[in-house]
Amino acid sequence: MKLDKLVGERFKEKPSDCVVDSHALMVRGGYIKFVANGIYSSYMPLRRITKKIENIIREEMDRIDGQEVQFPVVMPASLWEESGRYSSIDNSLCRFKDRNGSPMVLGMTHEEAAVQLVREYGNTYNRYPFMIYQIQTKFRDEARPRAGLIRVREFTMKDGYSFHTSQEDLEKYYDRCYHAYERIFARAGIPETIVVRSDSGMMGGNISHEYMLLTSIGEDSIAICPECGYRANMEAAESIIENSRDDVSQDLQIVSTPEMHTIEDVCKFLNAPAEKSVKAVVYQKNADDSYVIVFLRGDLDVNETKLTNFLGENIHPAVITDESGIKAGFIGPVNMNAESKPLILFDLSIKDANNMVCGANKTDYHYTGLDMSRDCPDAEYHDFAKIINGGICPSCGKHSITVSRGIEVGNIFQLGTKYTKAMGMTYLDEKGESHYPVMGCYGIGVGRLAASVCEAHHDDYGPIWPMSIAPWQVHLCCMKSADEETHKTADKLYEDLQNAGLEVIYDDRKVSAGFMFSDADLLGVPVRVIVSPRNLKDGVCEVVTRDKSYNEKITMDNAVNAVKELVDKLLKSCSADS
Amino acid sequence: MKLDKLVGERFKEKPSDCVVDSHALMVRGGYIKFVANGIYSSYMPLRRITKKIENIIREEMDRIDGQEVQFPVVMPASLWEESGRYSSIDNSLCRFKDRNGSPMVLGMTHEEAAVQLVREYGNTYNRYPFMIYQIQTKFRDEARPRAGLIRVREFTMKDGYSFHTSQEDLEKYYDRCYHAYERIFARAGIPETIVVRSDSGMMGGNISHEYMLLTSIGEDSIAICPECGYRANMEAAESIIENSRDDVSQDLQIVSTPEMHTIEDVCKFLNAPAEKSVKAVVYQKNADDSYVIVFLRGDLDVNETKLTNFLGENIHPAVITDESGIKAGFIGPVNMNAESKPLILFDLSIKDANNMVCGANKTDYHYTGLDMSRDCPDAEYHDFAKIINGGICPSCGKHSITVSRGIEVGNIFQLGTKYTKAMGMTYLDEKGESHYPVMGCYGIGVGRLAASVCEAHHDDYGPIWPMSIAPWQVHLCCMKSADEETHKTADKLYEDLQNAGLEVIYDDRKVSAGFMFSDADLLGVPVRVIVSPRNLKDGVCEVVTRDKSYNEKITMDNAVNAVKELVDKLLKSCSADS
Repeated sequence: MKLDKLVGERFKEKPSDCVVDSHALMVRGGYIKFVANGIYSSYMPLRRITKKIENIIREEMDRIDGQEVQFPVVMPASLWEESGRYSSIDNSLCRFKDRNGSPMVLGMTHEEAAVQLVREYGNTYNRYPFMIYQIQTKFRDEARPRAGLIRVREFTMKDGYSFHTSQEDLEKYYDRCYHAYERIFARAGIPETIVVRSDSGMMGGNISHEYMLLTSIGEDSIAICPECGYRANMEAAESIIENSRDDVSQDLQIVSTPEMHTIEDVCKFLNAPAEKSVKAVVYQKNADDSYVIVFLRGDLDVNETKLTNFLGENIHPAVITDESGIKAGFIGPVNMNAESKPLILFDLSIKDANNMVCGANKTDYHYTGLDMSRDCPDAEYHDFAKIINGGICPSCGKHSITVSRGIEVGNIFQLGTKYTKAMGMTYLDEKGESHYPVMGCYGIGVGRLAASVCEAHHDDYGPIWPMSIAPWQVHLCCMKSADEETHKTADKLYEDLQNAGLEVIYDDRKVSAGFMFSDADLLGVPVRVIVSPRNLKDGVCEVVTRDKSYNEKITMDNAVNAVKELVDKLLKSCSADS
Repeated sequence: MKLDKLVGERFKEKPSDCVVDSHALMVRGGYIKFVANGIYSSYMPLRRITKKIENIIREEMDRIDGQEVQFPVVMPASLWEESGRYSSIDNSLCRFKDRNGSPMVLGMTHEEAAVQLVREYGNTYNRYPFMIYQIQTKFRDEARPRAGLIRVREFTMKDGYSFHTSQEDLEKYYDRCYHAYERIFARAGIPETIVVRSDSGMMGGNISHEYMLLTSIGEDSIAICPECGYRANMEAAESIIENSRDDVSQDLQIVSTPEMHTIEDVCKFLNAPAEKSVKAVVYQKNADDSYVIVFLRGDLDVNETKLTNFLGENIHPAVITDESGIKAGFIGPVNMNAESKPLILFDLSIKDANNMVCGANKTDYHYTGLDMSRDCPDAEYHDFAKIINGGICPSCGKHSITVSRGIEVGNIFQLGTKYTKAMGMTYLDEKGESHYPVMGCYGIGVGRLAASVCEAHHDDYGPIWPMSIAPWQVHLCCMKSADEETHKTADKLYEDLQNAGLEVIYDDRKVSAGFMFSDADLLGVPVRVIVSPRNLKDGVCEVVTRDKSYNEKITMDNAVNAVKELVDKLLKSCSADS
């Protein structure tokens, strides 16, 4: 490919609407073009990258006996009514009517379609286990698309679905897929990806894992214990708090705290540390707007995923009305008699705590000396709090937790029988008895993976693509192409490199070295070969890697071989076995 | 791949809802599963076929300097408002609103997205020409999906868009693409595909061609002249009628034709041949329901595409009301004074005709002796009629036209500046003057191509896939696998064939030969290798082709080589250069 024919524009200025590097570099490098919020077109360099990623995924899915199939993007709503998700998923599921008025959805995930495809086939035990997967466009009507390809509305995803006759068999396969995913991320150039336990959310099922690339721009928070290796998405991480109860419990005493609406203000005023306060966080259920109040230690935050899972229904932050009887800013667990009868929940972080500050359910008043055992003897405690930096590791019990940010580049779920049961998929076992098969599902977003690799491997001037997914393997630059001899030599090298089976992008434009190199930096091709009149005088060309780790002058005779060897070496460094 | 693990069911009975063979065989062979009207999931065998087709298309598009990109499936309506097609296309364009209430569409074609992607890049003449293409899911909300994968609502399509600074340059590129398409169909196994001139329909532009696979189940009618090679879609074929005017013109005479509402009845009653009658066909414009009457020779039919193109707006068959003043069944060109003031059009087939029968615009009466020159002196004539079998070839003038049915497997269009003008895409030429680039567009439906190959190459028992797109290259059958020695030998051959780089599906189930072979027929793999105890006694296996043209016993020692040679030979026979 000659660079002067490559469709797409490259430029130096960082676009003002790009908050993460991969987004800015993909816009600046002519990889993507904005079409609508969370919707992009891809130019050729990105399409070449995504095709290579898709092929790596295919190879690894085929290695674990996956069968590539294809489900539709547009599905009848009736299929999603079978699983119950047509009504349970919020408006991130895009619903519309076709020309005949039939309700349809755009596929955001394909459990329903997978069960529909194999419902009859899987009617007897000896056909199990099997796994089917596709690589296909999905649409998820995200409320807040952001960060370029990191969170979009339309994306290409590999989604796989396995079917089993027992939980043990699922676990065996899940483990194979777990390792296949490790291989995929290693081969795509981000072996540093870690696996964490996660919350299963709307997918159903119990055990699930996410593959996280740790980076400060990540959307997810991950609790990691460097002591024992425990790793979990914050949404799923158990919060353990040890309250050291004071020996002497003070009396419950009401104090005036005028105009102090936050627990921070109150603690400051009363000279109490935040850990000695009980704060209230108020939500409303989406279904009926009834109130839910969670009491937890003042220095902690509510983990809304845990709360939602506990309630079994969706919630939103409350709008507290006068009629509710809830005294915003002064809510406490004692004498809470609001007319709106809120559901009261207690976090484990305040169990047995004494000498605490809390609201008095009376405007401008708080209590001191709260003793949960004495003053709220009937309270039941559950885990609703977010784990914190320095918190207790749920696995080894040390105060060792660190919280990092990460991008979720893949996920795997043990789904159980949620979908097969809902959709009436059964098989007969050896004895002729009917059972529901157990399912697993496995996802990777292709575009997000490309963007994540870019986040992990770039400098100020552009991406540094791993050889395995680079849009081209070799970037050939002909300096001063007006010089006929130089141009001829570069043309010949272009032919020879291609004949050696290498993917070459060739820049022979009559532009300055600076212009040429900044374009090359933006395309991020791992090996660069520079032909110039000055080098040719010495009978050499310059071979350098995009990451600057290699920079040699190679005689022209040996150029093709040397480049080929270097490309092969870099390809091998992306192997899963290295 | 072992056949006993292949997801999907194969069966003998023809499904009652399948009217064409490819549909029935794809359902019976475990290729597709119905999800909703015109929407299917694909099992692994079809996905393997479509991947091979996609790769053939990619290679040929890359050969003509195409750059693979990707456009979104979901697009903002505003993009389609720019081109004017948001309002001009009927409800086959799927429109819906996203979660924020923004109107969106599902891509049924991507001219708008293509212009949007390159609008800024293409701002200067020296970047031209270029061609971008994608292989992506499309959704077209067809009123009448039919025939399995021949006409669906959701499909995978390769669509390419080229941009040029002149019509001459477009034509040069169009010609390259024309031949690339011939190569694609040859490589996919249907070199018999023919190219015909076509009507451009909603795409705009003037010159366009369709690639047609002739088959009786095709939806399109194609006019072919075996004498000179003229070929056109009936929609686009000029109809030429030579009227031999009678020497003596009779007088116009009114005759009673009670209860005769069709031109056939009247002709029979008056003992006149249909060619000596003028019939009226009545339409209404979609926009305002005003009437349009076309007069043409009684033995001909109106070509509604020509009529729509002439009017520049859409029409539908009329509902004739009493108030309209139009005397249904008795409409004629003389004394036509209907209150509704219909638009009157005359087809060239009645120009200069005399001694014709026609309606008298009076219930139960017709005229005889109509002389168009004498009685309708002001009539203007245009071509509105469908070309007929035995009609005159518009190219060589002989009475040689035959009309055949065909499936459109691809199309290419010269679009002109319709989209670049509407969407404000311009470039500066050498002199700094601004122009609109000229576009071409080029489409191939992947699934329809697979189904068409199946239509062209199958027998009663299943598809006969060409080697280039077959789901596997070799189908290995182990007969009587309960026999340990036979099973071991077949297992070994399975390994060896795969190690030789061949794609093998291996059937070692303990089933009868008949059962095994009928499954193999349905999978349509071109080369079959049969290992059986009887053959092994002679130290041979049987190698046969699915099309029965080859059937040899090969010594086991030589089996891998012989099979490999046969596969290579069959692959070569699908080359575009053969």
